[in-house]
Amino acid sequence: MTSSDNTERLVHVPLGERAYDILIGPGLIGRAGGEISTRIKGRKAAIVTDEHVGALYLDPLMDSLQTDGIEAVSISLPPGEKTKSFDSLTKVCDVLLEARIERNDTVIALGGGVIGDLTGFAAGIVRRGVRFVQIPTSLLSQVDSSVGGKTGINTRHGKNLVGIFNQPDLVLADTDVLNTLSEREFRAGYAEVAKYGLIDKPDFFEWLENNWKEVFSGGAARIEAIATSCQAKADVVVADERENGRRALLNLGHTFGHALEAATEYDSRRLVHGEGVSIGMVLAHQFSARLNLASPDDAARVEAHLKAVGLPTRIDEIPGELPSTEFLMDAIAQDKKVKGGKLTFILTRGIGQSFVADDVPASEVISFLEEKRKK
Amino acid sequence: MTSSDNTERLVHVPLGERAYDILIGPGLIGRAGGEISTRIKGRKAAIVTDEHVGALYLDPLMDSLQTDGIEAVSISLPPGEKTKSFDSLTKVCDVLLEARIERNDTVIALGGGVIGDLTGFAAGIVRRGVRFVQIPTSLLSQVDSSVGGKTGINTRHGKNLVGIFNQPDLVLADTDVLNTLSEREFRAGYAEVAKYGLIDKPDFFEWLENNWKEVFSGGAARIEAIATSCQAKADVVVADERENGRRALLNLGHTFGHALEAATEYDSRRLVHGEGVSIGMVLAHQFSARLNLASPDDAARVEAHLKAVGLPTRIDEIPGELPSTEFLMDAIAQDKKVKGGKLTFILTRGIGQSFVADDVPASEVISFLEEKRKK
Ligand SMILES: NC(=O)c1ccc[n+]([C@@H]2O[C@H](COP(=O)([O-])OP(=O)(O)OC[C@H]3O[C@@H](n4cnc5c(N)ncnc54)[C@H](O)[C@@H]3O)[C@@H](O)[C@H]2O)c1
Ligand SMILES: NC(=O)c1ccc[n+]([C@@H]2O[C@H](COP(=O)([O-])OP(=O)(O)OC[C@H]3O[C@@H](n4cnc5c(N)ncnc54)[C@H](O)[C@@H]3O)[C@@H](O)[C@H]2O)c1
Ligand SMILES: [Zn+2]
Ligand SMILES: [Zn+2]
Repeated sequence: MTSSDNTERLVHVPLGERAYDILIGPGLIGRAGGEISTRIKGRKAAIVTDEHVGALYLDPLMDSLQTDGIEAVSISLPPGEKTKSFDSLTKVCDVLLEARIERNDTVIALGGGVIGDLTGFAAGIVRRGVRFVQIPTSLLSQVDSSVGGKTGINTRHGKNLVGIFNQPDLVLADTDVLNTLSEREFRAGYAEVAKYGLIDKPDFFEWLENNWKEVFSGGAARIEAIATSCQAKADVVVADERENGRRALLNLGHTFGHALEAATEYDSRRLVHGEGVSIGMVLAHQFSARLNLASPDDAARVEAHLKAVGLPTRIDEIPGELPSTEFLMDAIAQDKKVKGGKLTFILTRGIGQSFVADDVPASEVISFLEEKRKK
Repeated sequence: MTSSDNTERLVHVPLGERAYDILIGPGLIGRAGGEISTRIKGRKAAIVTDEHVGALYLDPLMDSLQTDGIEAVSISLPPGEKTKSFDSLTKVCDVLLEARIERNDTVIALGGGVIGDLTGFAAGIVRRGVRFVQIPTSLLSQVDSSVGGKTGINTRHGKNLVGIFNQPDLVLADTDVLNTLSEREFRAGYAEVAKYGLIDKPDFFEWLENNWKEVFSGGAARIEAIATSCQAKADVVVADERENGRRALLNLGHTFGHALEAATEYDSRRLVHGEGVSIGMVLAHQFSARLNLASPDDAARVEAHLKAVGLPTRIDEIPGELPSTEFLMDAIAQDKKVKGGKLTFILTRGIGQSFVADDVPASEVISFLEEKRKK
């Protein structure tokens, strides 16, 4: 893994008639009009964004579209997870229909994963599907949510419970915009970058250990890290578009992570998703070591790296009251199907050697969590 | 086309991994549990119905499911087109999630096209898609809306503007339940049956001319007519699942029909969909004759048959004020794309010889409508 020069990268996602390109590099928002108009016939677009991102990048995007003869309307929603709701979905569909967006016109998601998930869903159901372009602006959305076609909203029953698979027609990951992202959000997204190394790319993990500072500061290493992550996710998605098997590996660190998010009531002041994943990945490695599947040295190495970049790695780093083991186990059982006291978990045999285990005894998880809460 | 004995028919829709069976015959609701449990793994179901249909058929369906070990919940919505809304969609999704319907569990639409369209949409988005069974109870839904996978809801911008393609896993068309359908609704559905003959099955149209009374009274001829219609629609859908070309033929009579529905403000006391289609098909044949594409005798034969079964065939049969030509033209232009004064229309060269014409001069349509309004 060597960093190349500071130019653009292209990851192609070969999904037959749903194939698409992901462009990764600086200044892509300024070129969006050109990239879209060479790929999509319609001359109308509707941009969906949130108020943070819109204030910074809506005007440049509008200008770029106009330059290439694309007439655009926009809607700006409140930032935050609450925006992934039926209410927002209804509102966005209404705006798209009011703007008379037709099958060959484009709906653009300009924002983080919240905007991408909501907008991809709306674009897939208005007129039973119009063209859809992702312009992800958070690190998490560039390396994870904008690739793979999962879209959706939350309901009172839980996160992402209503939605569709809707692959975009194009993804433009403008690496410049990450400069305005908060340090904390950048770090949270970085947890997902590291995840790809831990799943099955030990060389990439090692490269990150050596180059993470440049990934944070921008430039070629950042582009390289994002492109490698997109390629990794694309590979998994192509192998298993509808999530029946291998795609489950993407949940490394997420079973524990989701339980911690639930325990902190999705209060982003206490824990954001990537932080939960960071702690969750460390726990998954420690738990694998405890089951004698992997060496404890690997768990220590994972913890050391995530700690170095400033991510939390232990449950007791979460501000506020420590969640009870019982609560965590309930959340884990909600998340995963429990069959005769056995759980499905992503475990590992070492760095870059994770696998799906579907026979993990609940009792082992309980004693592991008890132990972790003690120290 | 000969009528067979009074037993069940099966139409297979060969859509690759989305393939499914349509069973057509008497008593299918009583056997629903068995038919579902041999095809679908999950042991949970949720039934969506409307208050008319639910009062008649919910209990027998629940009993049948229970007998085969399927545990079911149900939701009953107000009958009528207004139920195809974002509000109902939100409500149905909530019920499905509350009942913990999972990917291999079943959502059942028990009702006419309104319930089928709404429920198919909900089943396709809850958990990004769970299993879906159509039990269509109106003639229209048995021969048209339950086949082909179009699902959706209406918005203030128009009908069916938000939705997805979602093929069912099974369709059970119980021909007995049509006995409780109002005569008017049965006739309206019959317009769509006749449509399949007029599109490309002249023998079927002739068979209907000779056998329509038995189709109305039930028994073997009814099953035969429904099976032939389902097969006809399935053939078109298989050739063009996503509606890019040939599927447009299914809109025979619908351009004029939709304009008439809009002119009567979708007031079902004045006009229901099938009645608009009946008048629209006669107009399409007369218009084709006027353009010297078809013989006026064919138009007369179509009119005579639809009149014989009791369907309206002329604009002036619609109760209330006659819509203006201008209003109708506006509605037609809304419905179809107008390119340089040219419209796309389904025209015909005679009975069973319809085709897509994409260069119909708007001026010709205007003078035709003017003429039709005069007599
Ligand atoms: N679809 C998928 O496969 C998938 C995968 C992972 C996560 N997700 C979803 O993604 C969501 C989280 O995404 P996220 O972390 O991007 O959250 P987000 O969209 O809420 O963005 C985080 C915050 O950063 C701000 N922001 C984004 N880009 C910015 C920029 N360039 N400059 C300044 N501020 C910026 C946003 O306004 C927001 O306040 C969750 O809803 C999660 O469920 C989806
Ligand atoms: N998805 C498609 O491809 C497609 C195709 C054509 C029409 N549609 C849609 O279908 C809808 C119209 O369908 P519809 O005509 O079935 O209307 P509907 O569902 O409103 O049913 C008509 C009436 O008949 C009642 N009813 C139904 N079955 C009955 C029975 N067995 N006994 C007594 N009463 C019964 C209903 O309660 C309702 O009052 C429209 O919304 C239209 O857009 C969809
Ligand atoms: Zn994640
Ligand atoms: Zn119709």
